[in-house]
Amino acid sequence: MSGHIAIAGGGLVGSGWAIVFARAGESVRIYDADANIRNGIMDVIRGQLEDLKDNRLVDDVNAILDRIQVCSTLQYAIGGAIYVQESVFEQTDVKTEISAAIAPLLSDGAVVGSSTSGIPASDFTENLTNRNRFLVAHPVNPPYLAPIVEIVPTPWTDESAVESAMALMRTVGQSPVLVRREIKGFLLNRLQGALLREAWALFEGGYASAEDIDKTVSEGLGLRWSFMGPFETIDLNAPGGVKDYAERLGPLYHAIDASRDNPQPWSPDLIRAVEAERRTVLPKADLAKRRNWRDRRLMALAAHKASLKD
Amino acid sequence: MSGHIAIAGGGLVGSGWAIVFARAGESVRIYDADANIRNGIMDVIRGQLEDLKDNRLVDDVNAILDRIQVCSTLQYAIGGAIYVQESVFEQTDVKTEISAAIAPLLSDGAVVGSSTSGIPASDFTENLTNRNRFLVAHPVNPPYLAPIVEIVPTPWTDESAVESAMALMRTVGQSPVLVRREIKGFLLNRLQGALLREAWALFEGGYASAEDIDKTVSEGLGLRWSFMGPFETIDLNAPGGVKDYAERLGPLYHAIDASRDNPQPWSPDLIRAVEAERRTVLPKADLAKRRNWRDRRLMALAAHKASLKD
Repeated sequence: MSGHIAIAGGGLVGSGWAIVFARAGESVRIYDADANIRNGIMDVIRGQLEDLKDNRLVDDVNAILDRIQVCSTLQYAIGGAIYVQESVFEQTDVKTEISAAIAPLLSDGAVVGSSTSGIPASDFTENLTNRNRFLVAHPVNPPYLAPIVEIVPTPWTDESAVESAMALMRTVGQSPVLVRREIKGFLLNRLQGALLREAWALFEGGYASAEDIDKTVSEGLGLRWSFMGPFETIDLNAPGGVKDYAERLGPLYHAIDASRDNPQPWSPDLIRAVEAERRTVLPKADLAKRRNWRDRRLMALAAHKASLKD
Repeated sequence: MSGHIAIAGGGLVGSGWAIVFARAGESVRIYDADANIRNGIMDVIRGQLEDLKDNRLVDDVNAILDRIQVCSTLQYAIGGAIYVQESVFEQTDVKTEISAAIAPLLSDGAVVGSSTSGIPASDFTENLTNRNRFLVAHPVNPPYLAPIVEIVPTPWTDESAVESAMALMRTVGQSPVLVRREIKGFLLNRLQGALLREAWALFEGGYASAEDIDKTVSEGLGLRWSFMGPFETIDLNAPGGVKDYAERLGPLYHAIDASRDNPQPWSPDLIRAVEAERRTVLPKADLAKRRNWRDRRLMALAAHKASLKD
């Protein structure tokens, strides 16, 4: 591909994206307005790449680092880029400001994807002259371990911009999904929110501890979900496929739905109770250590999935 | 432990349970009323054990088989058992009949766990004199690959019966969770139902294809969920733990909740549309082949998880 990839915002999300693109052989220019962050980016990235290498997920750390350049001006980062991944702070006014700064620097045919996890791009691109080149490209953190990317066009995004973002994500080894219309929370956080809401409700009703609700997922439902989604799961769980499953088990699920109370916000009392249980299982001082454990497990899972033939 | 494990019902669930207990060194007696099923059970189990051995999940197939005895009378299977896993057809009258047959054969202190995925045990044990020894022990299929077991006491189940079922499940390497009070769908199917309901709603709204909704789980959310549940996930996803996460992201999830329509049954049109998409991706004739793929993946995942130190 001719032209480089630009990344605007050098925090954890931006540096994770730099790894994704550089690992796939792309040249990356990464910009952050904060000189302290700029000075630290390469060390952060090197640390993450060493971890990946320890888990046999990358071979040559230095070759990947050589493809990443930290830039001190937005102009130099964006100029000539075929794709820009915007990864600044999750706030509409901050997104509006950076998008307005990127827009005049953008090459013809380039696309800008925002890493936002919840703000539709129409909220911060409406007044740009080339707003048809902007969309959301929402990753899971860290993107070099979780391949999903939600591509969410605005009502004014060009079809060609969508196609080129989807194609680029596939080229660099990610798994893009197309969210055809903007919706609050996109797919990923809506699905996560639905599971969480039921988890909170079960805890609130006193049916089980947070630990046992967690186990029901990590030792049960989540095993399949790490390699197949909910529709394929039920498609394979009845002799005749999804329609057969819906006929057999639809009534049970509808009865469950009917037994649910109306959606309720997570109340302060409820949050306090779950927080208290979690802090018994995992003291606050151990949160960081457990996050490292999680990342090692994610790496081991990524290596496991990569080792499988199909 | 003195005394054997009895299994009533020799279908897929019952023979899966036989593997769980015999693999852990327990003596197992398995009964089915149907002579054709009785004659086939050991071949089914041998096939499953060979698969497990190929994936290095068991060592000695014959030693495990030697611990399993197929019985032609319920009396011989149940007599002297310390625990009975009832795994007959999922229908209240069938469960009522087998429970009434098991009750008078039960040794003092023995416990009966039903494999039912949806019927609370109070629906089919109320009139038994020793109803205080009955509860639900709901597995995921196949139980020798998915360790979760939901232990659901009725209002009249002895605390000691609950404790002994939980302890036995831990002893044989399963992960029991305690559902403190009966609720439709228990934990597992309520959590699955919540995710499915959102998946159907996203498809119905035209936001994404079933395939892309599936990918959002299998290449994103489900990676973490294969080793940690929803509460631990959010507990590690904010610097200060679950309370901090709820403060930061609660408003987004509440807004998502508020944007949902009321729960709606999966409509026939909707089911037809998903069925049509699934049959494009996976023709009906290939369903069985894909189920074999799923089981190989579950085995590989079980081996992967077993290979990790923590």
